[in-house]
Amino acid sequence: MNIGVIGLGLIGGSFALAAKKHITNVVLFGGDKKVNNIKEAIEKGIIDYELKSKDYTKMDILILAIPVDAATDIVLNLLDKINDNALLFDVGSTKYSICKMVELHPKRNQFLGTHPIAGTEFSGPLAAFSDLYFNKTQILCETEKTRPDLLEWAIQFFRSINMNIQEMDPKEHDQHIAYVSHISHISSFMLGKTVMEKEDDEKAIFDMAGSGFASTVRLAKSSPEMWTPIFKQNNENILEVLNEYIANLEQFKSLLENKDWSEMHKQIKDINSIKKILKGIPESKT
Amino acid sequence: MNIGVIGLGLIGGSFALAAKKHITNVVLFGGDKKVNNIKEAIEKGIIDYELKSKDYTKMDILILAIPVDAATDIVLNLLDKINDNALLFDVGSTKYSICKMVELHPKRNQFLGTHPIAGTEFSGPLAAFSDLYFNKTQILCETEKTRPDLLEWAIQFFRSINMNIQEMDPKEHDQHIAYVSHISHISSFMLGKTVMEKEDDEKAIFDMAGSGFASTVRLAKSSPEMWTPIFKQNNENILEVLNEYIANLEQFKSLLENKDWSEMHKQIKDINSIKKILKGIPESKT
Repeated sequence: MNIGVIGLGLIGGSFALAAKKHITNVVLFGGDKKVNNIKEAIEKGIIDYELKSKDYTKMDILILAIPVDAATDIVLNLLDKINDNALLFDVGSTKYSICKMVELHPKRNQFLGTHPIAGTEFSGPLAAFSDLYFNKTQILCETEKTRPDLLEWAIQFFRSINMNIQEMDPKEHDQHIAYVSHISHISSFMLGKTVMEKEDDEKAIFDMAGSGFASTVRLAKSSPEMWTPIFKQNNENILEVLNEYIANLEQFKSLLENKDWSEMHKQIKDINSIKKILKGIPESKT
Repeated sequence: MNIGVIGLGLIGGSFALAAKKHITNVVLFGGDKKVNNIKEAIEKGIIDYELKSKDYTKMDILILAIPVDAATDIVLNLLDKINDNALLFDVGSTKYSICKMVELHPKRNQFLGTHPIAGTEFSGPLAAFSDLYFNKTQILCETEKTRPDLLEWAIQFFRSINMNIQEMDPKEHDQHIAYVSHISHISSFMLGKTVMEKEDDEKAIFDMAGSGFASTVRLAKSSPEMWTPIFKQNNENILEVLNEYIANLEQFKSLLENKDWSEMHKQIKDINSIKKILKGIPESKT
């Protein structure tokens, strides 16, 4: 079978490598707006051939793995071009916009919206690895709108690479993911910014940074090409969470100003119960 | 030689284990206000004997590894009790208060203020390990006030366990550490709080949490016993950084509200240069 991957970054590249590892007789095609990514992906054995738009019709599966704004821009055009038995699935971090976009397309039932909860702060084909999705959650949206045979293929594929499948409404997905992913990135970007502004006068400061700092700021390495469109598409939900986050920081600030150490102790103790939650989250490979 | 460790948590326990590994003919004594910690530390081979206050005078080295408020509470009393050739060093995350506290003590020159930039989010003797300090920074304050022979012993010891020594003024230390450690903890605590408040109605949310979330929220597992006193002693510096952090978040919020994606893209790109800084930070073992 032919699988085409549009976007050969960490996410798309890792799906290509996972497909190569788990599907027999698969031929991988890949496209990317950066010519160098295609070159690297071929050299690294992620794909067999470059995917040109004239090849779209030959693909059995097409994976859309580009920034979420670019994905909504081209998804209708891709659906127009794929053959009548092909499946197109996207892997973006927002789901409402793209599901809304394809809603009325005559080939809607050949589309599946997914969000693999996996990634590292690195990007590009060289960051890809075949086990990125091992034991990670794969969220599927509006499965009832996908043709049963194509949906079945997708589920089998995700299971074969050891993903845990979960179904979710696109709107709910975008609300929830703002809490457990998007706000973490904003928190990390702004922490990086705050510290780097200080660093302008104080070069010595970073000799003091330990692993705690490195871990909270890790996500600040994430690329603007991927994240600006996510913040754009999930604008409203993110604003809601960001307001709550800022309110909590302001409230913590009041505790500092009022020197209310017993309340602070109590709050931190309550927050510690997040241990139980974090236990269930698979470790990052990097 | 006899080394006494007051406070058998992650930090004190790991110094005891490192001393056992790197110093020949050492006998380790340990005290802790939690009787169970003493029991566990003996069982795990971290210490040889319980350290009772009558033993203080027998110690060649005394390591003060308890929360920073408790440390300033007892440091003068400890200096009163140690013998005339003993060294007492503390390992707290704030340095101004304790250096100020010992300033006029007749045995000031037997004290050394230190801050090992090492740790994990876990606490207690069972979290301790002998290599916690390997390739980590050890900050020494006001070394000119410590008796040269005792300072020399301390430097040799820290070097023998592969720490990188850096000298710093206590006031500067507290300002800088607010940026690279204390604010990371606040950011993480409040992120945990924000998400857990939401979780009350939405249990499903955590199935969606990936490694990005786990990494930014890791420090939210840190103990209130250790951190409330740090926030208390470094109150002013932390308030300054927290104000800057909140201002940056507010400014990012404006970008979201005004849909200024090009400025957002630019800012994130600038922040990405933190990669270079993070490269130099040793990985956490956990």
